[in-house]
Amino acid sequence: MRVVIFDGRLRFIERFPEPEIPSNWALIRVLKAGICKTDIEITKGYKNFKGVLGHEFVGVVEQCHDPRWVQKRVVGEINVGCGTCEQCANELERHCPQRRVLGILNLNGCMADYCVLPIPNLHVVPVSTADYRAVLVEPLSAACEILEQIELIGSEQAVVLGDGRVGILCAWVLSTVLSDVTLVGHHPEKLEKAGWRTLKTVQVTTNRGGHDADIVVEATGTGRGLVDAMSICRPRGKIVLKSTVVSKSKINLSSIVVNEQTIIGSRCGRFKAGLGMLEAYPDMPLERLISADYPIAQALEAFEQATQPDTLKIVLDMTGEK
Amino acid sequence: MRVVIFDGRLRFIERFPEPEIPSNWALIRVLKAGICKTDIEITKGYKNFKGVLGHEFVGVVEQCHDPRWVQKRVVGEINVGCGTCEQCANELERHCPQRRVLGILNLNGCMADYCVLPIPNLHVVPVSTADYRAVLVEPLSAACEILEQIELIGSEQAVVLGDGRVGILCAWVLSTVLSDVTLVGHHPEKLEKAGWRTLKTVQVTTNRGGHDADIVVEATGTGRGLVDAMSICRPRGKIVLKSTVVSKSKINLSSIVVNEQTIIGSRCGRFKAGLGMLEAYPDMPLERLISADYPIAQALEAFEQATQPDTLKIVLDMTGEK
Repeated sequence: MRVVIFDGRLRFIERFPEPEIPSNWALIRVLKAGICKTDIEITKGYKNFKGVLGHEFVGVVEQCHDPRWVQKRVVGEINVGCGTCEQCANELERHCPQRRVLGILNLNGCMADYCVLPIPNLHVVPVSTADYRAVLVEPLSAACEILEQIELIGSEQAVVLGDGRVGILCAWVLSTVLSDVTLVGHHPEKLEKAGWRTLKTVQVTTNRGGHDADIVVEATGTGRGLVDAMSICRPRGKIVLKSTVVSKSKINLSSIVVNEQTIIGSRCGRFKAGLGMLEAYPDMPLERLISADYPIAQALEAFEQATQPDTLKIVLDMTGEK
Repeated sequence: MRVVIFDGRLRFIERFPEPEIPSNWALIRVLKAGICKTDIEITKGYKNFKGVLGHEFVGVVEQCHDPRWVQKRVVGEINVGCGTCEQCANELERHCPQRRVLGILNLNGCMADYCVLPIPNLHVVPVSTADYRAVLVEPLSAACEILEQIELIGSEQAVVLGDGRVGILCAWVLSTVLSDVTLVGHHPEKLEKAGWRTLKTVQVTTNRGGHDADIVVEATGTGRGLVDAMSICRPRGKIVLKSTVVSKSKINLSSIVVNEQTIIGSRCGRFKAGLGMLEAYPDMPLERLISADYPIAQALEAFEQATQPDTLKIVLDMTGEK
């Protein structure tokens, strides 16, 4: 099968062995796979992962011991827990210390004609949901994680820093429960695409000003973003850290102590939350986040495009000619 | 009057003008004042403060328009809010953006024969409480702040990193509500002094190991301490940051995101909490934290002593011959 692998360098391979199917797992024919910033970081050495890349996908179950799943269009939770530890018992497989993670940790990913996942990880995609929307369930669920971690009453003022895919998704998700959400970014065309419901967008060329936000989401993935977040956040406010690629910057955290702010790390979310969000808000304009769609054979160009500052989501397509 | 000031260098001055007493403020004759790490940081440029140092004290009200306060032995909250903003309205003067802070920000401190504070900042010290205990109400209240910020159910496992004054006080306070608290430090004699109730102490020469603490208090004031805290803390656990002097280290915060940990900045606390703790736990061995007591005239030697690694709390005494 065709795959995109990282084995020290990023490569497209046409003939790669199909994965074996462990018992109680499903073989999934991948339709589309998204390129995430994490994938790009992996190609720079993040997590020391070697193997088939990719953890965002929509696909169709091809083989599985439970016939009810066969031919179902699905998305899949990316964390595969041990199934026996305390975290797994609490449905927190994403924090199982022995977990494998699709395309990130000890498990080949979905930038391939086929991938495998345990059946309990799968969720059927409603027929009415287009592939372009379904392929974004993983990052959308990660954005929804904020709502699981922070109790919101509705009157909070929230600021999201960063107009990339993660920032826009977080801003949209917060906009479903808060009336005062501002997305701050540097790219006019991304900010324009982000406009939805009551969301305000601000292009920052100078300091935004204000030290009164109740919630600040740091989605720039830079040390500078965290410094800005500390400055914008009110005393005793909350800063959500949404990027694992925070640079090893020299950051003085004394403002966190003086202002008794809270920093909350936030990673993957439950797919149930992401799918529920899609169902509740069919007008959430996820399609706007897709900048381009490349056949898997053009994966290298696709990765190159994904690193460009004006790009939002790049998708690989596996449905074309093999 | 005699004062210890920092005006670019640390100095003891014998003849300094007595403070004016604003209306509704009290003139307090200081009995004892503690030297805090913040004072030492100020002498290195922290907060750019110039003036009389000191924010930990016990004293006696000498002048005040309300006769009920005169001759009362008191301790005093160190933050003086504007009295009109939202923070002040919520009794959070310690987060008022216009606040002055005794010996730290726009207000002369208590390393002096006299200092002044608003009457609402004062708390009467019970007769049964010795000066040596009362002078520690400020740092004890700061330790109690953790209990205000984190809801604890009692079964949590807590680790406190740092066997200095702040670390020991935090460990003691946590020990009043949790049965499983471990204080980790480098100094055997400090750890021995820290022993109280069910508190466990561990001298670390190598990595402590374990990644399962529910709560980790970072009280070493070093970047290394925060890195250790992230490693010891379980996924979705909480890290309390207790030192404003966190070094500008290169810290990779990605563990916070991957493990969805929460960092909570924690600074001053309500004196009511500290005094309540003293009353509820008369056996809390605060006296052990006093390493030495110097007459104010020997303030420079006292500061020198306060920076030594084996020193806990150094106190200045103003009751001796003038």
